[in-house]
Amino acid sequence: MTTINQLIGQIGKLKSESHKKDLLLTWEQTHDELERVLKIAEALKGMRGENIATKMFHSGLGISVFRDNSTRTRFSYASALNLLGLAQQDLDEGKSQIAHGETVRETANMIAFCADVIGIRDDMYLGAGNAYMREVGAALDDGFAQGVLPQRPALVNLQCDIDHPTQSMADLAWLQEHFGSLDALKGKKIAMTWAYSPSYGKPLSVPQGIIGLMTRFGMDVRLAHPEGYDLIPDVVEVARKNAAASGGKFTHLKSMEQAFEGADIVYPKSWAPYKVMQARTELLRAEDRDGLKALEKECLAQNARHKNWHCTEAMMKLTQGGKALYMHCLPADISGISCKEGEVQDSVFERYRIATYKEASWKPYVIAAMIVARKYADADRVLDQLLKEATPRFR
Amino acid sequence: MTTINQLIGQIGKLKSESHKKDLLLTWEQTHDELERVLKIAEALKGMRGENIATKMFHSGLGISVFRDNSTRTRFSYASALNLLGLAQQDLDEGKSQIAHGETVRETANMIAFCADVIGIRDDMYLGAGNAYMREVGAALDDGFAQGVLPQRPALVNLQCDIDHPTQSMADLAWLQEHFGSLDALKGKKIAMTWAYSPSYGKPLSVPQGIIGLMTRFGMDVRLAHPEGYDLIPDVVEVARKNAAASGGKFTHLKSMEQAFEGADIVYPKSWAPYKVMQARTELLRAEDRDGLKALEKECLAQNARHKNWHCTEAMMKLTQGGKALYMHCLPADISGISCKEGEVQDSVFERYRIATYKEASWKPYVIAAMIVARKYADADRVLDQLLKEATPRFR
Amino acid sequence: MTTINQLIGQIGKLKSESHKKDLLLTWEQTHDELERVLKIAEALKGMRGENIATKMFHSGLGISVFRDNSTRTRFSYASALNLLGLAQQDLDEGKSQIAHGETVRETANMIAFCADVIGIRDDMYLGAGNAYMREVGAALDDGFAQGVLPQRPALVNLQCDIDHPTQSMADLAWLQEHFGSLDALKGKKIAMTWAYSPSYGKPLSVPQGIIGLMTRFGMDVRLAHPEGYDLIPDVVEVARKNAAASGGKFTHLKSMEQAFEGADIVYPKSWAPYKVMQARTELLRAEDRDGLKALEKECLAQNARHKNWHCTEAMMKLTQGGKALYMHCLPADISGISCKEGEVQDSVFERYRIATYKEASWKPYVIAAMIVARKYADADRVLDQLLKEATPRFR
Repeated sequence: MTTINQLIGQIGKLKSESHKKDLLLTWEQTHDELERVLKIAEALKGMRGENIATKMFHSGLGISVFRDNSTRTRFSYASALNLLGLAQQDLDEGKSQIAHGETVRETANMIAFCADVIGIRDDMYLGAGNAYMREVGAALDDGFAQGVLPQRPALVNLQCDIDHPTQSMADLAWLQEHFGSLDALKGKKIAMTWAYSPSYGKPLSVPQGIIGLMTRFGMDVRLAHPEGYDLIPDVVEVARKNAAASGGKFTHLKSMEQAFEGADIVYPKSWAPYKVMQARTELLRAEDRDGLKALEKECLAQNARHKNWHCTEAMMKLTQGGKALYMHCLPADISGISCKEGEVQDSVFERYRIATYKEASWKPYVIAAMIVARKYADADRVLDQLLKEATPRFR
Repeated sequence: MTTINQLIGQIGKLKSESHKKDLLLTWEQTHDELERVLKIAEALKGMRGENIATKMFHSGLGISVFRDNSTRTRFSYASALNLLGLAQQDLDEGKSQIAHGETVRETANMIAFCADVIGIRDDMYLGAGNAYMREVGAALDDGFAQGVLPQRPALVNLQCDIDHPTQSMADLAWLQEHFGSLDALKGKKIAMTWAYSPSYGKPLSVPQGIIGLMTRFGMDVRLAHPEGYDLIPDVVEVARKNAAASGGKFTHLKSMEQAFEGADIVYPKSWAPYKVMQARTELLRAEDRDGLKALEKECLAQNARHKNWHCTEAMMKLTQGGKALYMHCLPADISGISCKEGEVQDSVFERYRIATYKEASWKPYVIAAMIVARKYADADRVLDQLLKEATPRFR
Repeated sequence: MTTINQLIGQIGKLKSESHKKDLLLTWEQTHDELERVLKIAEALKGMRGENIATKMFHSGLGISVFRDNSTRTRFSYASALNLLGLAQQDLDEGKSQIAHGETVRETANMIAFCADVIGIRDDMYLGAGNAYMREVGAALDDGFAQGVLPQRPALVNLQCDIDHPTQSMADLAWLQEHFGSLDALKGKKIAMTWAYSPSYGKPLSVPQGIIGLMTRFGMDVRLAHPEGYDLIPDVVEVARKNAAASGGKFTHLKSMEQAFEGADIVYPKSWAPYKVMQARTELLRAEDRDGLKALEKECLAQNARHKNWHCTEAMMKLTQGGKALYMHCLPADISGISCKEGEVQDSVFERYRIATYKEASWKPYVIAAMIVARKYADADRVLDQLLKEATPRFR
């Protein structure tokens, strides 16, 4: 196993401009930059495991802006801030004046005087979430340039309409742990497939994030969904190009069976069709409740025609030796447990339950690593200091 | 007065397995273990008073899960976490996905990756609160054993359907302070009595916690309530056995007058009958609003027949020298102040107001001590370090 | 530019009794005491700019009580606490039992066992906000004297019905920065004027805070508003007396034009008439919704008669060289941006946008300085320690 010391050495050698740009889409980062984030995450997790404090900030605030409900991401973000020594402060738009016509750039500056990080989750509106983050980023750049802000806070994309980088990078870290190395992932077959769920409107960011990221690492990525459940075409194109560039493979299939055939990894998960998300965005903006109800009804009926997209024991038998690694961002719709009929059969989920927990356990470290990568050109120096000081996290 | 140094010496000598089990019911702890918690609380309070920092954690999270409203307990818990160096993070079940069918074990793990403590208040459902805590505890044990969690967070019972250990232990710490020592409590007469209140549905955990704990320390415990206002029979049985084992006394009486007669301490407080709480739990589960309204009406009418259970000046005259110590977990229903007719006469409350504040002031330290006892087999070593370093809490 | 070292020297020389009294109204502080707060704020901001940690508290809580919505003040307060090493804890009165008849003094003590600061915003009820703060202060004094509290928390007025000291002091700090020194402000003409807004019920505390404070520093303060939009008469009287004592000037005018004529600084901002706020308070207390709606309708109609109170380019031309400094506490009602017709023309606001951000950026430091002034008689000693130690805020 790589020691923390070795990791720090490797971090120092990877070329990175991450300290100059927010990580809003993984495909805007180079391979080295992504690998560096992974290694920083590993180093932080390693130090935590050895009871070595990882506080880089003596004080400072991390702001969170959640425009959608969240337990996992909220706690992972809070944990990441705490790992680095930052205190969390929520921008609750319900409570705050932001809902009363303030401009984004003003609010961005007002909350940032003492902020080192701003994490945003905005996945409800197709075409808007990532754009909003960039608008905030531009306002922060301007505020910093004009001398309003004493520092440029790192922006963290905690899920948007296009990508979910903290999820996909945590997933990648877990795959690296499970298979032993990034190199070991080359040629591995991963099936990112739609699965039936008795709910509708689930964001596209997870499947898009997975196909956009795993194609960077030479994997054999298979995307499969029923007809009409398309992802954003641009992102599918990104995946295609990534695969070509990395020596991997990207296949777009029409059945779960095809995707599972011989797969090393399966990621069956529900999402709403791209065009439904577009329609929904317009209805949400117009506050058209009747329209939303009608759309929901129509979509649930459409979903119900695809109940055979179900990760059953029989389906798992199709995979490599019948033993593919099952992944999920959680919570999964488990048939007979959290719903009558859902994404995954209960016995399949139960077998991989602990694995999915371990997958999720990478999230705090990946988020912390993204912050470190954005704040420090010389992350290796800082990590080295912490390792040498070895202040116990708890007595 | 015992010095902090002496306290630490005594803590080191008390036998304890507290670091292996959550403190969910005081009667699951040995006498020594409870005494050790008290002494740790005293040591922490003493250090705070001398401006010595008590941070044992360089970073880390304390999670709070409040399934009922709370001001006092919330702030006491936040204070306890802060005393130890932990940051608070609320699991707001309204906001989070926990309400949407997630299993307890999954959520328990998801929030705990960087958590050192999870404090839970769940006192609404008879038969469910303490059970829920144990389910969370089992999930955390499993997560830790499986390598999902790098540490097993301490679980703190911030009030359940059966016991309210942080309240009863704070009350005990206050009695110890007031009467000079734990030994001085032997034979002291304490009247835990029902009192009239114009509200209904108050939890049983305070009276149950008091009779379950004070009988451990050789006190003469008198429980009194109108007919039909029974506590959980099992807990009354626990109190009876505790008294027998500790050389104390436990009497079950039918009038406030009998209980107050010659009492050294009185604790008059309203609660709902055990059977009403059972019925209420079923109605709450069934979301039967009409049923709940009918039950409330019936109970308020029943309460109103017992307005003579009122801690008046005349009632206080019956106590030892007319000067028993009045206790309350706050807020009290003060006649003429917070309600027309309530638990206690205004002049009685006013005389003991500051005493009840001091009683409450132990809570942060008792909660912190419970965390320390759960996390450290060698709490004396850690406290000794802190005392010797004597880092000023503020400059 | 004054060095941090020089500032600390000056702080040590200014006479102050600030550690014995809460800063609830600026006019209850001496000139030296206010100047000292400004200099502490400058020193803190300077240290932050040089990456020097300003934590004076190793642990401790800062409580916030917001009885009105707030983004800016909430974040500024959170930032101030963080700058000093304190953790924030919200008293959410919706969630807590405080709404159920608890007395102020009880709650004040219950939340304060480990609190070093309590910040309160209570600006909704004329005649009540500042009074409530004093009641809390008295309860804290008593709790500390009686041995309930190990420390007397500093009380911070985060906006009340009478004054808004954290805003007016931040404004003063900004003026000092902009014009180079406090001395440079002598004789400067500042126009604090009403401006049209399509909303009603905005608190009086900003204009009252400005006229009450700027008259202390020899400025030529002009208050102007339409007939009927009076401020609290007592506060106007305070401003008049302050001006006389400081060698400044205070004029009460009837048009925006007169006030802007030759002004060096303009502060156009909407507020509700004093008598409307009184009527509103009574209606709010009586929960008279119909009455409130009728009052709102009447007031909006009244406002609409004064749309010419608009900070336009033409209006700005009247000021000193056409280049007066525009100020606002934010968010401003910008015509064509945040509303159809409002307080300020969009091009005027845009020109001063960054200036208003810089104005706001002083708030965290001013709040922190108020806390330091309340907690430390010898603030210079503490600041000097921090400067000499020069612990990096971040690595």
